[in-house]
Amino acid sequence: MTNIQNRQVRLAGRPVGLPKRADWEFTAEPVPEPGEGEVLVKVSYLSLDPAMRGWMNEGRSYIEPVGIGEVMRALGVGQVISSRDPLLAVGDFVSGLTGVQECAVLKARHVTKVDPRLAPLPVHLNVLGMPGMTAYFGLFAIGEPKAGETVVVSGAAGAVGATVGQLAKITGCRVIGIAGGRDKCKYIVDELGFDAAIDYKSEDVSKRLQDLCPNRIDVYFDNVGGDILDACLAHLAMKGRIVLCGAISQYNTTTPIKGPSNYLSLLVNRGRMKGMVVMDYAGRFEHAVRDMAKWMAEGKLKSREDVAEGLEAFPETLLKLFSGENFGKLVLKVA
Amino acid sequence: MTNIQNRQVRLAGRPVGLPKRADWEFTAEPVPEPGEGEVLVKVSYLSLDPAMRGWMNEGRSYIEPVGIGEVMRALGVGQVISSRDPLLAVGDFVSGLTGVQECAVLKARHVTKVDPRLAPLPVHLNVLGMPGMTAYFGLFAIGEPKAGETVVVSGAAGAVGATVGQLAKITGCRVIGIAGGRDKCKYIVDELGFDAAIDYKSEDVSKRLQDLCPNRIDVYFDNVGGDILDACLAHLAMKGRIVLCGAISQYNTTTPIKGPSNYLSLLVNRGRMKGMVVMDYAGRFEHAVRDMAKWMAEGKLKSREDVAEGLEAFPETLLKLFSGENFGKLVLKVA
Repeated sequence: MTNIQNRQVRLAGRPVGLPKRADWEFTAEPVPEPGEGEVLVKVSYLSLDPAMRGWMNEGRSYIEPVGIGEVMRALGVGQVISSRDPLLAVGDFVSGLTGVQECAVLKARHVTKVDPRLAPLPVHLNVLGMPGMTAYFGLFAIGEPKAGETVVVSGAAGAVGATVGQLAKITGCRVIGIAGGRDKCKYIVDELGFDAAIDYKSEDVSKRLQDLCPNRIDVYFDNVGGDILDACLAHLAMKGRIVLCGAISQYNTTTPIKGPSNYLSLLVNRGRMKGMVVMDYAGRFEHAVRDMAKWMAEGKLKSREDVAEGLEAFPETLLKLFSGENFGKLVLKVA
Repeated sequence: MTNIQNRQVRLAGRPVGLPKRADWEFTAEPVPEPGEGEVLVKVSYLSLDPAMRGWMNEGRSYIEPVGIGEVMRALGVGQVISSRDPLLAVGDFVSGLTGVQECAVLKARHVTKVDPRLAPLPVHLNVLGMPGMTAYFGLFAIGEPKAGETVVVSGAAGAVGATVGQLAKITGCRVIGIAGGRDKCKYIVDELGFDAAIDYKSEDVSKRLQDLCPNRIDVYFDNVGGDILDACLAHLAMKGRIVLCGAISQYNTTTPIKGPSNYLSLLVNRGRMKGMVVMDYAGRFEHAVRDMAKWMAEGKLKSREDVAEGLEAFPETLLKLFSGENFGKLVLKVA
């Protein structure tokens, strides 16, 4: 054991609906020494993601659920403070599944070295991290947009959605973003260059899609599910493609999930709906990070983070994802 | 005008739920002379298809709705009794959109010559006709089954489903059919060589899928929608593919269509769900008919027709499709 005390957030119970404070337990314990091939990482920033909600449930998914009593799973970025691996040195910055804690002992082969000169650390949890990779591979590998096509993305001011829209603009598409509230809508049009925005909180999404997409929707990138997925299905173009990336409107529901009533639009329009899990593309991340860093340097791609502070703020900060309060990639500053 | 009196069935109203007798009108009128490039066809057999129900509704679909007062659209096969086209002679057999009537004047370029030596006429409305083409391209072009995979098909004793299952067996797949009633289940296993059958009327489909598909479902060919689609989604294998071909359980519903609640299984399993419309593959029908005729000659592929008689029986016969009464491809003998 080292003499470093490590504060941690553990899963105390399986939430029903939105996670409550009582679903979490705060602990502190000494950090173990890293073993052969391991590194000790001091966590700088944690990524707060909608997927976390799924990890808290029991049952089959693309990844094992977090066990009761375990440190909550989270992606983080931090600095190596002790290393027993020849490829990583003290002072190196890395990203990986650190968990919601101040320090983490990780296998060196499970972390990715990040270059802090390329962008500030939180950006490595956003455009250059998982949300960016999700946007890149979801849009390009599953959505397959072509210049001149119409792309619609929901959760458009969120980490994945904002990048999807910008990548679609880089591809030469007409891009409509769906987001909640006037500020977010203004942001994606004025700051990110989307062609138009729909405020699902104050506008009739279906009617606005009709007005804004005279040639219907070629690619819909779905982060939300529910009624918005149904509205986009109803306006799908011939051979339209739907990228299923998430369904944040359904993650905390305690009633059965609402399936898309308009799914037969896939039949009428010879459309397809396909799910994506970003880790399937891990072998191509390096290439994507290079593309993204280049576009950022050229000013074509912006990364915006919403930074909360302190491990103790984790439970409340996580809820911002589901209330739609966060604006840009939600990260928690730990160190 | 010729002096041939032509009896016809016309759409009199837009049905709500199941079509009623009052939604149809019986008329008779002299047959017009065929014009340049047209042929006069005496209809022998008509194809009765679930898709007919969709054609009776107003609204956007893959094909225009049948107008009120128009002769009901139908595929038929018959004999040329008068020709003003150099490529078709009196006595030739053709298939095409004859409509529900005894005689039809059709453009020669809109009909397909059929070879009655290859198989009896009704087979040209089944395995060698649209249901066969739907099965062939839906399974091979969208489902993409590989030898050793598990294929599940619903409506398995119907015209499309029975052929899908047999084609999947020819491909070397393990094939499970879902059908209604013990006789149909026995038929697809004993006569058509399916590996197993599930009787959705008396069995728990989800539980049976669990038992019969230990490696889950690689390809699900959906003819029915509703709860069975949901059950198959719940048992989808990694990278599973769902072919959306129809949704007969939903065609007559007067409440909103039930979307598949388990659609997020596509995300977890990186699955895809894709719609198919057979006419998109028209350019490849000839090739498919050759394959199918060869498999029939080799005894690997069977065609079963359920033949009703007489134009006046059309309204009641059509309903058999929705009550699940028909057994094999439903056709109406006209001449």
